[in-house]
Amino acid sequence: MENFADVKYILDGFLFVFAGILVMWMAAGFAMLEAGLTRTKNNATVLTKNIALFAISCIMFYFVGYNFMYGDGSSFIGSGAMLSGKTNEAMGYPVMADFFFQVVFVATAASVISGTIAERMKLWPFLIFVVVLSGVIYPIQGHWTWGGSELGGILAGFSDFAGSTIVHSVGGWAALAGVLILGARKGKYGKDGSVRPIPGSNLTLATLGTFILWMGWFGFNGGSQLALGSKADIDGIALVIADTNMAACAGAIAAAILTQLIYKKVDLTMVLNGALAGLVSVTAGPDLGMVISFIEGIVGGVLVVIAVPLWDKLKIDDPVGALSVHLVAGIWGTLAVGIFNPDVSFFAQVKGVVIIGIFVFVSSFIVWKVLDLAVGLRVDEETEINGLDIHETGLEAYPEFKRS
Amino acid sequence: MENFADVKYILDGFLFVFAGILVMWMAAGFAMLEAGLTRTKNNATVLTKNIALFAISCIMFYFVGYNFMYGDGSSFIGSGAMLSGKTNEAMGYPVMADFFFQVVFVATAASVISGTIAERMKLWPFLIFVVVLSGVIYPIQGHWTWGGSELGGILAGFSDFAGSTIVHSVGGWAALAGVLILGARKGKYGKDGSVRPIPGSNLTLATLGTFILWMGWFGFNGGSQLALGSKADIDGIALVIADTNMAACAGAIAAAILTQLIYKKVDLTMVLNGALAGLVSVTAGPDLGMVISFIEGIVGGVLVVIAVPLWDKLKIDDPVGALSVHLVAGIWGTLAVGIFNPDVSFFAQVKGVVIIGIFVFVSSFIVWKVLDLAVGLRVDEETEINGLDIHETGLEAYPEFKRS
Amino acid sequence: MENFADVKYILDGFLFVFAGILVMWMAAGFAMLEAGLTRTKNNATVLTKNIALFAISCIMFYFVGYNFMYGDGSSFIGSGAMLSGKTNEAMGYPVMADFFFQVVFVATAASVISGTIAERMKLWPFLIFVVVLSGVIYPIQGHWTWGGSELGGILAGFSDFAGSTIVHSVGGWAALAGVLILGARKGKYGKDGSVRPIPGSNLTLATLGTFILWMGWFGFNGGSQLALGSKADIDGIALVIADTNMAACAGAIAAAILTQLIYKKVDLTMVLNGALAGLVSVTAGPDLGMVISFIEGIVGGVLVVIAVPLWDKLKIDDPVGALSVHLVAGIWGTLAVGIFNPDVSFFAQVKGVVIIGIFVFVSSFIVWKVLDLAVGLRVDEETEINGLDIHETGLEAYPEFKRS
Repeated sequence: MENFADVKYILDGFLFVFAGILVMWMAAGFAMLEAGLTRTKNNATVLTKNIALFAISCIMFYFVGYNFMYGDGSSFIGSGAMLSGKTNEAMGYPVMADFFFQVVFVATAASVISGTIAERMKLWPFLIFVVVLSGVIYPIQGHWTWGGSELGGILAGFSDFAGSTIVHSVGGWAALAGVLILGARKGKYGKDGSVRPIPGSNLTLATLGTFILWMGWFGFNGGSQLALGSKADIDGIALVIADTNMAACAGAIAAAILTQLIYKKVDLTMVLNGALAGLVSVTAGPDLGMVISFIEGIVGGVLVVIAVPLWDKLKIDDPVGALSVHLVAGIWGTLAVGIFNPDVSFFAQVKGVVIIGIFVFVSSFIVWKVLDLAVGLRVDEETEINGLDIHETGLEAYPEFKRS
Repeated sequence: MENFADVKYILDGFLFVFAGILVMWMAAGFAMLEAGLTRTKNNATVLTKNIALFAISCIMFYFVGYNFMYGDGSSFIGSGAMLSGKTNEAMGYPVMADFFFQVVFVATAASVISGTIAERMKLWPFLIFVVVLSGVIYPIQGHWTWGGSELGGILAGFSDFAGSTIVHSVGGWAALAGVLILGARKGKYGKDGSVRPIPGSNLTLATLGTFILWMGWFGFNGGSQLALGSKADIDGIALVIADTNMAACAGAIAAAILTQLIYKKVDLTMVLNGALAGLVSVTAGPDLGMVISFIEGIVGGVLVVIAVPLWDKLKIDDPVGALSVHLVAGIWGTLAVGIFNPDVSFFAQVKGVVIIGIFVFVSSFIVWKVLDLAVGLRVDEETEINGLDIHETGLEAYPEFKRS
Repeated sequence: MENFADVKYILDGFLFVFAGILVMWMAAGFAMLEAGLTRTKNNATVLTKNIALFAISCIMFYFVGYNFMYGDGSSFIGSGAMLSGKTNEAMGYPVMADFFFQVVFVATAASVISGTIAERMKLWPFLIFVVVLSGVIYPIQGHWTWGGSELGGILAGFSDFAGSTIVHSVGGWAALAGVLILGARKGKYGKDGSVRPIPGSNLTLATLGTFILWMGWFGFNGGSQLALGSKADIDGIALVIADTNMAACAGAIAAAILTQLIYKKVDLTMVLNGALAGLVSVTAGPDLGMVISFIEGIVGGVLVVIAVPLWDKLKIDDPVGALSVHLVAGIWGTLAVGIFNPDVSFFAQVKGVVIIGIFVFVSSFIVWKVLDLAVGLRVDEETEINGLDIHETGLEAYPEFKRS
């Protein structure tokens, strides 16, 4: 260390490492949340799925995806050998630190999907979808945005600080495509249009998962400042983290108050999803100040309470509420930047949401369809009724605990 | 970054962010600890309470409390518009980073209360108390101490590095005031003076909660060095963190050995509370060296093992032992600084403990009493027997698990 | 802060603190993993053991072990008063920061043992073993390696970046010595040579534990760079962390695919242990690049799937698979450095594995044997059948949950 440029280099690299570790930790949060909100008979499969999707995302993004996203290539997709042409000196930061930070984001997108398709999709077809998502679909739309190609200028002006659209709604669109092909869980919707609630089996775990995600989000949004080596950067990071926390708090409280008003009880699962929706809502613009973040979070929390029963009206069965949290609030958060940030065009935000949405939904739909035709997405009825665990993993999550 | 002052600014700001994230994580620890040490029929309410109290504390402290604590105002209470007059340049650190670090401390004080009043207090009255605590009570006594007013000189010389008194015993006094009005859980104390043990439902979660708190405490105490940008600061932080760990270890082992001697068995819940008492004990002076921290932790662990049955003798029912851990060990830790630190007057420590204790106890008592008269603090008997969850949240924490 | 040497001092110290906190967190991971993979009737004891072993390791290493490891002394063992002669100025970093980072490694070695001897060893004899391990056995072999004595040159050239051998296989050898004296759990092996599977009681907790360990490992390996204050250091840390993540992913996926191929199901516990084996495998050389780390992780994952049934063939009963993960993969990881790093001699690696293995196994065997003769290692048959919890802690981990 001989000059201030060296100090900046070290601090910038450290931010990636620090924030990346927090984002990796979100994988545990998604796993606990999904396990807590689904039934015990499917929990071992849920857990297997969550750890495997993280592993696959990281491997695929290293060997394939990173370069599709950040390589030069065309305005549609990057190319070149793995990490080619990226030396630490040329980039001005440790390339592997940046890679580590980016790779854990891919896993987040994949985790979003996992919850929506839980309790009736086969393990391996899902994991094959993750291969394609992390290797191709996610990197292509990432190339247009964070990769800098702007899809040849079409996405110029689109602003998404940490990924309300680029990560969360990408996961949401892919999940929606999947669930349309997959269908609802047996017994979720009666022939008379009734909706049968299927309560989550372990709300302490679901709460723990929410806290883990909340904590990890400080890395998700704070690290997206992408540098620590200047006063402006630490000022920015501090604001981003305070804003992120405020939006989560606002989302949780909004959901608590609203469910009290509507249902005369505070629905814990809505409070959890309200906090998460607040987090997703602030992610596109977590640098806009505490009052704006408060408003974004409130709206996020309200949207979740409204959206969850709406999906059920459409007979779209989402066991953990991921579509409401990551897709609905992800769209809201992205549009909110167009509303609250005077430097960002609302129309550019709409364009980004629509174009990325169409691309991810259509490409995901094709992949799901091919998988469905080739190997079948859905477990057979007997496996679904008895629980996926016996068939998929041969283990039970809680073998000693008596079921009621 | 152009000079060493800039580097210091960045590092000081980063310390607040880093430590604040760890302290936020303590909210998860409190939630898991309380859920693990209470009964399943109340767990959904416990979880709802913990996430909501964190959200309320953060929102209230931003919009109201921070300025009561750190604003100029009188020697009794600060004033001025929110964060007014605090620019990054003037303060020499990112104001939002400091805010984030401070705000998560408020939530800690509120979490302490939550455990003591668990399993029979209504959700909303508790949350309203948290509004007052985080908006007014906590900031006022914080204004006298960390806010620098010294209550007009009365508290001059009082030393509380990271909050044995200012955070932990504040939570403890407020909890004590609440529990005196609220009363014990049905069936806890027999008419013949007998004490019925009500075992915690999930000791793995309680243990996880303890580990989370232990980890988060490194931010709580380490961050209270308040700066990272000098050799003296990192030396200080390193000592603080090693001391903090030592005190936790000492408290755990003291409780393990003592319960083995008294009860011929190692009581896990005492070991957990012993570790936490060690942490609280060291918090007022975590910069005094490893041997002093070891002694402080030992005494903390012993105090918990003695105090828990004493509260029961007084028919003060504290489901999680928070009064023993945060109030008793908080007082001990504060006085210990007067004993072990030659630069601190023992009398000044006593004065601080007493004055802050009286203020928080009396003001909390009034608020609890008003709430009790206005809406009632306690759930009705049927709700308590059937569990708060059905009435307060409409959900069960473990709906599939058969109860014995 | 007046010059770049000061900045380096601060950053180096901060790395120790940051990484040490992550490694401390691994204690929670080990506790959750072991509790999740054992039976509920023994869980309170498992949890007590895990928190107590951490506390004892830290206390012993401070008062005794650190100086045996890093003091001058002979080439066999260090000596001198506690932390003597180590001033911050002389060392060029805050000594307490280094101490904190080192002390949490000792606890990791002790945690490895805990899993293997679970469900039938008495609590206190185990804790006494931890006293000796953390005070004497671990520090002596640490003195030869990280302490720099090279055992008088015999271990010259041995390379173990973060402790595949020095931490993980040390725990593994001590565990193996213990289990040979202790024997298998009642009913694990039939007289006809049959092996009865004893499923883990809580796979969500086991998965959470694995994610915690994975996260903590970034501190374990990343912090072992031992400095942050240069561009080369942050480049190194970034590579180490990306490599560590890659090896864990590779281990998990290798185990998933292999169990699918062999058993036609994905065995979740094998996937968890596969990830951990990948982590252990990369720990001796996490600075060798992503492709090598990928290969090391694959081999680690495969080794676990092969080793777990092999130990059972030998009637060596390891409830959590720690011998496969920490001993087998620890040896593999150490040898792999001799294979993949052209600067390291394969023979030097073999020598290190063998010499440290013999020392730890023999010294541990003696200590276990003495304990067995003096107080008995094993609980009586009735206690084992009814569960250790009633006898050792007087508490149940899940008192309200009905057992099936």
